[in-house]
Amino acid sequence: MKSTEPGTSGAPRPAGRPRSQEADVAILSAALDLLIEQGAQQTSIEQVARRAGVTRATVYRRFAGKTELLVRTLEWANHDDDPGFTGWRDLEHMFGDWAAYLAQPRNRLLLRRLYGSRDDHPELMAAYRLVSGGRREAAVRAALAGARAAGRLPAQVDVDVVRELLSAAVLYHVGTRPDDQEPGQILAYFMTIMKQVGLRS
Amino acid sequence: MKSTEPGTSGAPRPAGRPRSQEADVAILSAALDLLIEQGAQQTSIEQVARRAGVTRATVYRRFAGKTELLVRTLEWANHDDDPGFTGWRDLEHMFGDWAAYLAQPRNRLLLRRLYGSRDDHPELMAAYRLVSGGRREAAVRAALAGARAAGRLPAQVDVDVVRELLSAAVLYHVGTRPDDQEPGQILAYFMTIMKQVGLRS
Repeated sequence: MKSTEPGTSGAPRPAGRPRSQEADVAILSAALDLLIEQGAQQTSIEQVARRAGVTRATVYRRFAGKTELLVRTLEWANHDDDPGFTGWRDLEHMFGDWAAYLAQPRNRLLLRRLYGSRDDHPELMAAYRLVSGGRREAAVRAALAGARAAGRLPAQVDVDVVRELLSAAVLYHVGTRPDDQEPGQILAYFMTIMKQVGLRS
Repeated sequence: MKSTEPGTSGAPRPAGRPRSQEADVAILSAALDLLIEQGAQQTSIEQVARRAGVTRATVYRRFAGKTELLVRTLEWANHDDDPGFTGWRDLEHMFGDWAAYLAQPRNRLLLRRLYGSRDDHPELMAAYRLVSGGRREAAVRAALAGARAAGRLPAQVDVDVVRELLSAAVLYHVGTRPDDQEPGQILAYFMTIMKQVGLRS
């Protein structure tokens, strides 16, 4: 596998993988951009190919159709998101991370697009929850249970109900607050909510 | 204004208003159906006219464009929603109403469509909140303050924070639960949340 690409000037480069990976990344990041900018319904394989600078055939060789492409895009976009993550030290640490995430307009747009695609492309929200949800859910539960064990939350706090309430609060923030809030404001939003379930600082 | 419509057989009917109102209702209900079925982005004036059985010109004579049509549709759909409403007796009464509303799949779809349209048609969510939100917000606040005054909620409960938390919980329920839940299940969902902010039964 040492053959060089014909017609490539300059340093020889190995055929196969690298070139294929370049096209993969170009396609996936074009798909992510379009999903964020205009939503799943309005995004077509044709547009993705054009933006990625490849042919439609190149896209179809890798992905059976738009839904598969967008599901793989979400898996890819959330994949290298801190693989060494094992949990948060405490609730302030957790909400600090959330605030940093939600201070990025692209993340907010993506969450809105996913919620909005539930009826036309239910696979997308399912994929997103599968990739980022599973590990994250366990970590949220652990952070809440830790605060309860440390006496910062009342003993009767139900960790699963509060975890869902916090996911609801994320969705609500993304849907109702402006996209240019500072991380500090967003952190304060979560702490205000936690006070209502009895958090002591 | 006693002239009858030319070409209409049967009983004479007054010209102007009634006929015009019929077209209004046909257009608005077609627009509401399409908004629910396929969302704002995919809905066109052409489709609305076809479904309402009128010409595009008839629609454009009444509405400057799609956004105005959809905003007026939301105002119309939420307008005759119990004009004599003055508030809820207690929290159970309030959540019972919410549960009945959220047990209707069409209402859930509409809420998802509105959330999903925030980036492409921000006027829609704003119109919905203006029509149904203002009066409703005050009533939710009153029901929560009443429960607090009656000693069913802790004194430190912040009525505005809990009100927003409940709106968040609605959005989350609509986004994550199946559309065929019974009102009783939905009511239990809200009561479980309220228990976390200290509600005593």
